[in-house]
Amino acid sequence: MKTVVFVTHNNGKFREAKEKFRSIGVELRQYSGGYPEIQADTLEEVALYGVEYLSDKLSEPFFLEDAGLFVDALKGFPGVYSAYVFRSIGCDGILKLLENVVDRSAEFRSVVAYKEPGEEPVVFRGVCRGEISYEKKGSNGFGYDPIFVPVGSNLTFGEMDVKEKNSFSHRGKSLQKLLEYMRRVMGKD
Amino acid sequence: MKTVVFVTHNNGKFREAKEKFRSIGVELRQYSGGYPEIQADTLEEVALYGVEYLSDKLSEPFFLEDAGLFVDALKGFPGVYSAYVFRSIGCDGILKLLENVVDRSAEFRSVVAYKEPGEEPVVFRGVCRGEISYEKKGSNGFGYDPIFVPVGSNLTFGEMDVKEKNSFSHRGKSLQKLLEYMRRVMGKD
Repeated sequence: MKTVVFVTHNNGKFREAKEKFRSIGVELRQYSGGYPEIQADTLEEVALYGVEYLSDKLSEPFFLEDAGLFVDALKGFPGVYSAYVFRSIGCDGILKLLENVVDRSAEFRSVVAYKEPGEEPVVFRGVCRGEISYEKKGSNGFGYDPIFVPVGSNLTFGEMDVKEKNSFSHRGKSLQKLLEYMRRVMGKD
Repeated sequence: MKTVVFVTHNNGKFREAKEKFRSIGVELRQYSGGYPEIQADTLEEVALYGVEYLSDKLSEPFFLEDAGLFVDALKGFPGVYSAYVFRSIGCDGILKLLENVVDRSAEFRSVVAYKEPGEEPVVFRGVCRGEISYEKKGSNGFGYDPIFVPVGSNLTFGEMDVKEKNSFSHRGKSLQKLLEYMRRVMGKD
């Protein structure tokens, strides 16, 4: 069975992905060693720097994932720095910045970067469009989930169970693209 | 004459520092090659990662400088990410986050990391305490200067000329510490 390494500290993300990969005959292994996340304007730059850093350290095919919330009226803020912004000003900070702002549109983006030894990295993107709510709702999920309502629903991610959230989610989409890519590549072997 | 490299893209910062160093008999050279700035909670971590990255690339003694605005009521936001936050939500974003907030206290911090070949890096810190104003004032300086009033003045940095600002500034203090360190070290030679 082919083995692939998922570079993540997040055990929940790993468990979710593990099942998906098993369904296409790939054994997923977790690597929690981490990598330096650079300050950059795009998730792609952050992910590709991480891949380059790790390519000396891991001998098996591996991938990592980075995600962020990009609010249109705030020129993409908090974007690449979503995690830090969440720890400092949180959902309440985003709501305050959007007081009296009519355009609430935003998107969650996820980037997966995958690398086979000796080959160039491949990048897969997943986007979920939506709107920032006027108040926090729900306590499921994490981060900005209580203030994000995806297109096609009236609920925030914080009000959805995991299965429902995954049917909309940016991360579900980028990982699905990686799965399809691997299925094609393995089919050629 | 001893030569030291200042790693910075900012020609203005370089020119200011060049004069100061000449006064103690050090020739300053500019290196604009840059270095990856990592996402971290402190300026020190960002600076030391940069130093490690550059230590293979530069054969002469060198230093770099990183700075940020830390607002107490916002748990240190925008902090290490001040430059990015400025480009997205700007001074207006900070003022909006502080609407109806009584505690306006904040500080500018500067960290200088200096490295001699074969030795451990040395770190110097400069802090300037102050308050966030209720509106933007003045058009001098850059970044958050129009909303920062240092302790001991009624003017924002944006209302001051360079000389007056430097008498308060965080960067002036950290560079001064480096100068004093170098004077001591050179005195021993």
